[in-house]
Amino acid sequence: MPIELNSSADVAVAPRRGRPGYDRETLLSVCVDVFNRHGYDATSMGTLSKHLGISKSAIYHHVESKEAILEQALDRALDALEAVFERVLAGGSGPVNKLEQILDGSVHVLVDQMPYVTLLLRLRGNSEVELAALQRRRTLTRTVEELVRQAQEEGELRTDISGRSAPRLMLGMVNSIVDWYQPERSGAVDQLADTVVKMVFSGLRA
Amino acid sequence: MPIELNSSADVAVAPRRGRPGYDRETLLSVCVDVFNRHGYDATSMGTLSKHLGISKSAIYHHVESKEAILEQALDRALDALEAVFERVLAGGSGPVNKLEQILDGSVHVLVDQMPYVTLLLRLRGNSEVELAALQRRRTLTRTVEELVRQAQEEGELRTDISGRSAPRLMLGMVNSIVDWYQPERSGAVDQLADTVVKMVFSGLRA
Repeated sequence: MPIELNSSADVAVAPRRGRPGYDRETLLSVCVDVFNRHGYDATSMGTLSKHLGISKSAIYHHVESKEAILEQALDRALDALEAVFERVLAGGSGPVNKLEQILDGSVHVLVDQMPYVTLLLRLRGNSEVELAALQRRRTLTRTVEELVRQAQEEGELRTDISGRSAPRLMLGMVNSIVDWYQPERSGAVDQLADTVVKMVFSGLRA
Repeated sequence: MPIELNSSADVAVAPRRGRPGYDRETLLSVCVDVFNRHGYDATSMGTLSKHLGISKSAIYHHVESKEAILEQALDRALDALEAVFERVLAGGSGPVNKLEQILDGSVHVLVDQMPYVTLLLRLRGNSEVELAALQRRRTLTRTVEELVRQAQEEGELRTDISGRSAPRLMLGMVNSIVDWYQPERSGAVDQLADTVVKMVFSGLRA
């Protein structure tokens, strides 16, 4: 089974002569869509084979297992989120400014990598790969929690709110984007990120 | 199969002589836990029978179908949320005050009825019952959207944010509670609701 290197994600969807060929990128993208539609646990290699229109052995030519596909997909989401956090934490600004940049950057990652982040957010933790991904996610939450704590200590954030709930609420707000964001109806991602940052730190009141 | 009327939700879990009897309330609660753990689509009447420890025909003594159980569970969540909205909308306050009361009341419903709301929030819309529930949910979102619009028009809320995204972000923040709230670690529900309302309308900045 030859691997055809397609440059565009929808090449494989177009009618072709013979069996469709996939590059790793397109294969990953189709599999993640199937996982998100049917649930990772409920998706078998047989289901993936049907949706990809290639045999199971052709899939195994590209990847070792269903779990290896999951791992690559979760890395995509987590690498992007972690890159935002690393970039922001390396900067010299104060904790509130860092939190603003983290929320802004996370909104951009959620929109750019929506299928991959959707998969991450719906994990149930039923395997080693899932548990490792959830652990990486928890580290990001703890970083936000720590920044909120610092900002409260330095008098930049109000202290009459729950320091445990506030970080989870602001991340929950950002994560909700995968449930309702429609690029064509919800406006530009920059405006969305701006709305999140304004709401969380300055509030909506005029 | 006799229906035993238990007054407490955990009576059925205690060891009993003969087959366990369920009141409707306990049956519903056990089924919803199974739906939330395995996914509604992936749960068969056979799975429910195993978890309940009673035969399928005994379940049919209580309910018509798996979908009837889903409908009752979704009604539980939606009736409670709609009751909050109706009470608040009947009041005489301005749109921002109404929004604050809606978020506060919704947080309380989410914590009080967490398994039922969790089920509602994870629906995929694969049946008539699910589509009807999603339609009721959409009506609530539209009500919040309309209140935000009114508040912006009356100068009570800032207008430099997205009027489409803001309502979905604030509801997404509230909905995230089912993903992370732990009564024993996250503090009292009143403090949680207060943190939500303060963050959304006044912002976290000191």
